[in-house]
Amino acid sequence: MRSIAVIGYGVVGSGVVEVIYNNAEVIERKLGEKIEVKYILDLRDFPDSPYATKFIKDFNIILNDPEVSVVAEMITNAKVAYEYTKQALSAGKSVVTSSKAVVAQYGAELLALAREHNAAYLFEASVGGGIPIIRPMHQCLAANEIDEVEGILNGTTNYILTKMFREKLSFEDALGQAQANGYAELNPAADVEGLDTCRKICILASLAFGRHVYPDRVHTEGITSMSLQDMDNLNQADMTVKLLGRAYRKGDQLFAMVCPCAISHDHPLANVEDVFNAILVKGNATGDVMFYGKGAGKLPTASAVVADIIDVCKNGDRSKDISWKAVDVEFVSDYQLEKTAFYLRTEVTDRRKALNYAKKLFGNVRVFDGAENELCFITETALENQLAGKLEAFSQSAEVSAVKNKIRVL
Amino acid sequence: MRSIAVIGYGVVGSGVVEVIYNNAEVIERKLGEKIEVKYILDLRDFPDSPYATKFIKDFNIILNDPEVSVVAEMITNAKVAYEYTKQALSAGKSVVTSSKAVVAQYGAELLALAREHNAAYLFEASVGGGIPIIRPMHQCLAANEIDEVEGILNGTTNYILTKMFREKLSFEDALGQAQANGYAELNPAADVEGLDTCRKICILASLAFGRHVYPDRVHTEGITSMSLQDMDNLNQADMTVKLLGRAYRKGDQLFAMVCPCAISHDHPLANVEDVFNAILVKGNATGDVMFYGKGAGKLPTASAVVADIIDVCKNGDRSKDISWKAVDVEFVSDYQLEKTAFYLRTEVTDRRKALNYAKKLFGNVRVFDGAENELCFITETALENQLAGKLEAFSQSAEVSAVKNKIRVL
Repeated sequence: MRSIAVIGYGVVGSGVVEVIYNNAEVIERKLGEKIEVKYILDLRDFPDSPYATKFIKDFNIILNDPEVSVVAEMITNAKVAYEYTKQALSAGKSVVTSSKAVVAQYGAELLALAREHNAAYLFEASVGGGIPIIRPMHQCLAANEIDEVEGILNGTTNYILTKMFREKLSFEDALGQAQANGYAELNPAADVEGLDTCRKICILASLAFGRHVYPDRVHTEGITSMSLQDMDNLNQADMTVKLLGRAYRKGDQLFAMVCPCAISHDHPLANVEDVFNAILVKGNATGDVMFYGKGAGKLPTASAVVADIIDVCKNGDRSKDISWKAVDVEFVSDYQLEKTAFYLRTEVTDRRKALNYAKKLFGNVRVFDGAENELCFITETALENQLAGKLEAFSQSAEVSAVKNKIRVL
Repeated sequence: MRSIAVIGYGVVGSGVVEVIYNNAEVIERKLGEKIEVKYILDLRDFPDSPYATKFIKDFNIILNDPEVSVVAEMITNAKVAYEYTKQALSAGKSVVTSSKAVVAQYGAELLALAREHNAAYLFEASVGGGIPIIRPMHQCLAANEIDEVEGILNGTTNYILTKMFREKLSFEDALGQAQANGYAELNPAADVEGLDTCRKICILASLAFGRHVYPDRVHTEGITSMSLQDMDNLNQADMTVKLLGRAYRKGDQLFAMVCPCAISHDHPLANVEDVFNAILVKGNATGDVMFYGKGAGKLPTASAVVADIIDVCKNGDRSKDISWKAVDVEFVSDYQLEKTAFYLRTEVTDRRKALNYAKKLFGNVRVFDGAENELCFITETALENQLAGKLEAFSQSAEVSAVKNKIRVL
């Protein structure tokens, strides 16, 4: 029997305990022994829980118990999660986690600490919920140079975009439905402003390219400016909009970015709808490989955590395999030096004059029908910094009162 | 440095050598040491190969060389592959393979032999080419009871069905194009008659459910009866046709089958086109997870073989993890005891009379427009053995001259 501790008894934490006991039989078959949750650490009280006797409030009990070799960390507060993880690893206990904020910010450091103490630090559940992605990328594609990773990494925003596209709901109404269905937090900022996607693409990029990519180095835009008009226009051009996290190799440099992207309907990610996530990995030998499933949710995420627990129990400090370097030099390239095209929605005072000016600035633009006070168009492809300069000039012209949305066209 | 032997220098075998040397840098980074191909066994001569000095014809050289701990088996002839695999495992050498025929028929035996001799037997490349599926199913979904596996497992047939559906090519023309593009063998029987798909679903089902599922126990139908008329009719009903391998748990029994299936356009597998494969796995905690990519091809398949080589070099006899029982009792249930609906294309002498009889037999049928001498319809859902009995009666009636195609509607 293997004793573990669960720290943080929220949605995922309680799911982990549930999966361990509900699927005890298959777990024992895989592992060759039982897993027992010896402690559950949480500041709150759960007197009615069937596991009431396991609850503790003092982390030192776990640290000082030699029977506990694995800690499953599912603490919402990233600072506390980081501190507890450091203490557990330093005590030689392996840690498995679903906390993307911690891995994205401190992954290199915690992986090094784990290695130093012959412990493992695993985080399959931090990206894509129950979708296997960390281990397949690391092990199954081990013979590949990975050239690119991109994906729909946040279920909440994908649900909102799908509702807007399919059911013509406004952004606000779609967000409201997401909240009503439990897919979005009361404060949805981390989702709709792209931060959650940013953390996940940082983890995937660090793993794929071997150097830590920090979230604050990755230009991130959310979906709060999306309108039905945009959806409609792009649909006319045979495209849909998805919030993508993207990272690809450029010689010694790395391009990484999070933003809503207009993609053609035959793009492999175009049909990924609702709360589903999908991650596309390009290997130099294997070509395109895609992983698809529900990217969040209590049991999917918990089952990924438990798979990591089983791996640690079986293989000990195998996380020595996974590591990436914390490097000082700047290797994330300036996203403005990439080529792109913009879809733009602007408010204008004189549509004809504004259109003439747009053509002068952006070349052969594709214009969408619209109201007299609105001008929507797709620019030609150019370096982003050139487009940005032209957009600045355009926005300051007398005929243009506001730029309401900008979507990159892949 | 780790020395390995490659046996069988066909498409995949030569790809393995290519990946090992072309991606030597990333492999060394992952493994911590170099991989060297010490021997290549093949009956043919390759005097102009850059690896000419490595070729041998006597397998005993490999068996008797203690430096070689891993054998990569890519021999086309399954009987020879099986014999060499047994000899290598018995000598304590690990074997990695892409030979689905060998794994599907002898998996349980070879896994037990590997375990007995502290060696590994790995076969990531046997299903889905470069798509990671064996390891993710085994490791990442380890905390799940797997309820169902289904997939598009053969690229050749999917290419043919896509060409028929999208470009209105006849089956024969689509097959010709597949052959011209190198996607189909000159003798395409194993692909178009479903045997290749059958072997792959057997491997996935054995892995998912822990008991060896033998190919001859799985009812298998191919796509040779498909016509453009069928594609057209089903498209009108918002469906497309895919050759699916399916296996799911039914209490203590297992349902497994290979046949062309009519699926709705929003089915997750409906948009998997051309030579792409996709595998859908349902876990009791993680829900639906899908794996997608090119299911064949020299480098994708070779890179999966090399990932297994890296795993063996790193972790030795970890394949002890993977095993399934060879059981005598019959646990694959009779597919005729499942519920289904048939799409039928029949030749008739009197359309009106035939339709009346069809309604009498099959209840509320959905009828498609068509020529006077043809009747196409979808039956109500019923047990397959009941439908089969009714179809027998229908085919023998005076108004019906032939049943030309039967597709199960999911």
